[in-house]
Amino acid sequence: MSTFGPRHLLGIEPLTRAEIETVLELSGRFLEINERPIKKVPTLRGKTVINLFLEPSTRTRTSFEIAAKRLSADAVNISGSASSTVKGETLLDTARNLDAMSPDVVVVRHAQAGAAEMLAGRLRAAVVNAGDGAHEHPTQALLDCSTILAHKQRIAGLEVAICGDIRHSRVARSNIWALTKLGARVRLAAPRTLLAPGLAELGVPGAVAVHDRIEPALEGADVVMMLRIQKERMSGALFPDTREYSRTFGLNLARLSLAKPDAIVMHPGPLNRGVEIDSAVADGPRAVILDQVGRGVAVRMAVLYLLAGGETAE
Amino acid sequence: MSTFGPRHLLGIEPLTRAEIETVLELSGRFLEINERPIKKVPTLRGKTVINLFLEPSTRTRTSFEIAAKRLSADAVNISGSASSTVKGETLLDTARNLDAMSPDVVVVRHAQAGAAEMLAGRLRAAVVNAGDGAHEHPTQALLDCSTILAHKQRIAGLEVAICGDIRHSRVARSNIWALTKLGARVRLAAPRTLLAPGLAELGVPGAVAVHDRIEPALEGADVVMMLRIQKERMSGALFPDTREYSRTFGLNLARLSLAKPDAIVMHPGPLNRGVEIDSAVADGPRAVILDQVGRGVAVRMAVLYLLAGGETAE
Amino acid sequence: MSTFGPRHLLGIEPLTRAEIETVLELSGRFLEINERPIKKVPTLRGKTVINLFLEPSTRTRTSFEIAAKRLSADAVNISGSASSTVKGETLLDTARNLDAMSPDVVVVRHAQAGAAEMLAGRLRAAVVNAGDGAHEHPTQALLDCSTILAHKQRIAGLEVAICGDIRHSRVARSNIWALTKLGARVRLAAPRTLLAPGLAELGVPGAVAVHDRIEPALEGADVVMMLRIQKERMSGALFPDTREYSRTFGLNLARLSLAKPDAIVMHPGPLNRGVEIDSAVADGPRAVILDQVGRGVAVRMAVLYLLAGGETAE
Repeated sequence: MSTFGPRHLLGIEPLTRAEIETVLELSGRFLEINERPIKKVPTLRGKTVINLFLEPSTRTRTSFEIAAKRLSADAVNISGSASSTVKGETLLDTARNLDAMSPDVVVVRHAQAGAAEMLAGRLRAAVVNAGDGAHEHPTQALLDCSTILAHKQRIAGLEVAICGDIRHSRVARSNIWALTKLGARVRLAAPRTLLAPGLAELGVPGAVAVHDRIEPALEGADVVMMLRIQKERMSGALFPDTREYSRTFGLNLARLSLAKPDAIVMHPGPLNRGVEIDSAVADGPRAVILDQVGRGVAVRMAVLYLLAGGETAE
Repeated sequence: MSTFGPRHLLGIEPLTRAEIETVLELSGRFLEINERPIKKVPTLRGKTVINLFLEPSTRTRTSFEIAAKRLSADAVNISGSASSTVKGETLLDTARNLDAMSPDVVVVRHAQAGAAEMLAGRLRAAVVNAGDGAHEHPTQALLDCSTILAHKQRIAGLEVAICGDIRHSRVARSNIWALTKLGARVRLAAPRTLLAPGLAELGVPGAVAVHDRIEPALEGADVVMMLRIQKERMSGALFPDTREYSRTFGLNLARLSLAKPDAIVMHPGPLNRGVEIDSAVADGPRAVILDQVGRGVAVRMAVLYLLAGGETAE
Repeated sequence: MSTFGPRHLLGIEPLTRAEIETVLELSGRFLEINERPIKKVPTLRGKTVINLFLEPSTRTRTSFEIAAKRLSADAVNISGSASSTVKGETLLDTARNLDAMSPDVVVVRHAQAGAAEMLAGRLRAAVVNAGDGAHEHPTQALLDCSTILAHKQRIAGLEVAICGDIRHSRVARSNIWALTKLGARVRLAAPRTLLAPGLAELGVPGAVAVHDRIEPALEGADVVMMLRIQKERMSGALFPDTREYSRTFGLNLARLSLAKPDAIVMHPGPLNRGVEIDSAVADGPRAVILDQVGRGVAVRMAVLYLLAGGETAE
């Protein structure tokens, strides 16, 4: 895989367009394995993947675990509540300890931005960022790109609306980098209190627009990506009322009609039905939300494969 | 396995007698694997089993996990506390998400009756009910039947007493269906507050009798099945005092002498020693409680095998 | 392995010197597997290892899990919070239940001294003590001996200082037995409130000295083993102030200069930086703390191999 240079996957920002495309292309091949009757290849046999999740997560941890197992790697899960970090150990000490057990990849989710990057220089294992605070969540952006490609056959030239709690969203940040590097234009929409300074400077220069209403972002969009309202991450002052939020920023069928007739609707999950997205949209024909999830396993297989240095895939 | 039709195992009620017998027969063959030095067959290699346990459980989850691994399937555990359901997602959304990762079987335990059935029509994966509220717990009944068969060589014609908190017991409900379909007669015994309307109408018509004292149920019984007092599930009003309960409904040696001299004693675990069962009985020669557990693994291997469509067993 | 007799590993006290040496020698061979690109051998294929951890732990559980998986055993984790013990079941009932599922090894951590030994006579599976109260933690002592051997080429004749909360430390007790059986002399150092009666009588007679200051223990030592301050295990009365503790018993560079110039520094982790050990020491060239962790996996592979009766190792 001569076009994938990095030893770690810390974010989309440091990746080249060619590197992103390498992951996407490879994940297409792994997707096919997930639909076979025997969903397993020996590619990473004898490799160890540690999932160090110090924030609660079902889907991302499960997705990485299944990805590792379908490549025949040994997957070991460590979650926040059971971890030594409750005994006051630092993240670096915990990770160095795990690293001394010779894992090939450490997948880390942590509440603090920069956590994965801090570890990357200090471990022998490859580090995958599975979400660090409000910074990046690169495999989510990669699976989102994979999904868009499957439905739109291209990313360059598309208009992508990312709507909701941009301020706290690592999903938004990673997607801004991925989509603009691949040639899309990104429109961010959030209430003013859920925007943040400098958003328009993220991604490829000139490719990002910022709106404090959802309607202009939706108008003529090819892709509508709704963000989860991260209630657990917000202080009350920014976000007084889910009903008011739903009324002004929730995606319902009327609002969706502003987008292109063939626009697809995405969401990283878990859904707050009736808050950021109506069930009529989430369960409707234009939603590709579950397709995102399925592609997530394939994208993570590709990432583990590229970083764990497995043998040639079947 | 032409005699096993269903795509899911949601309860014993929907099964035919022949389908129950198919599982029991097959589990006999898997039991033997569990006693080998090498307790593993490649039957379900490349299959993925997700254990989605949204109520606390050690033994049932572990039993399914070991069953899956001994068949070479990949087992992925998700437990309530770590789950996205804490983020307010619905069970259906959680399950659909997992389903998008292409598991072959989703084993689900949930506090609400009907949870597994609700999922069954909506997922691509086969669904196994590992306990849904006070409704059914089919693999428990199957392992109980397997245990009875091993000790009594038959089920038809036996008198089986099921005693204790019938009202809240999915174990009782599944056993009523299984035992009466296989030709046994079932006597239910509980204090009046722990009975429920309609119990005598469960199972094969005319095969179930209901008592509000334990003695008539025990008299001449071939099998005595004591239920766990589900303290966590009861409101105080129904159940004032464990000492009083033990005095009137606990199984001690004196009470056990009412049953046939060769009666066996069963319990689904975990035991409340000194409450529903005395240690002299639980640890005595007529208890087959640990045999039930061992057969549980074999029964779950059989169920996973039948539903995951594995290759021919060794 | 004719020199390893026991069916269980309950502590170091019951082992002969030859048995300890058998584990150490075998772990040397397994260490090499952990550095291969393909870190996996089929030795324990078809064996089941249950990690029953009823006290919180990351590193020890992970170490046993990785050890099992690299030997191709199936590893099943059960942790305290998820366990049926929360439903009031006894440890023995929980363990007997798990044993009925035919595991080959049950690794148990429990807050009560003697827990593993209590189980050993009552299960069919081999039992490994992964820490029982303040009693023993034998695999920790074995990995410590493995580390000392690697850096000092011998144990006989060494002077080993073990410093800190001796009173509550199973690590100290297991090391006293292991080190003195292998011919080292052990100096224990703790504030008077963190000593306990009878410490000088542990291990080989005459091989243990007890100090209530750290300096005499460090003087001329070949090995300095600092213990974790087990805050969660101490009542306030014994231990008024971490700052005072650090001032009088913390290992800093000045104190370390009392030991031999080539002395190594060990710690079982997790570290309380700035309390029992300064970062300048913990991260310095004489610390072998992460080497301990790596050797832990290899030692546990050796123990599982010896007790699970695997086929000949590669």
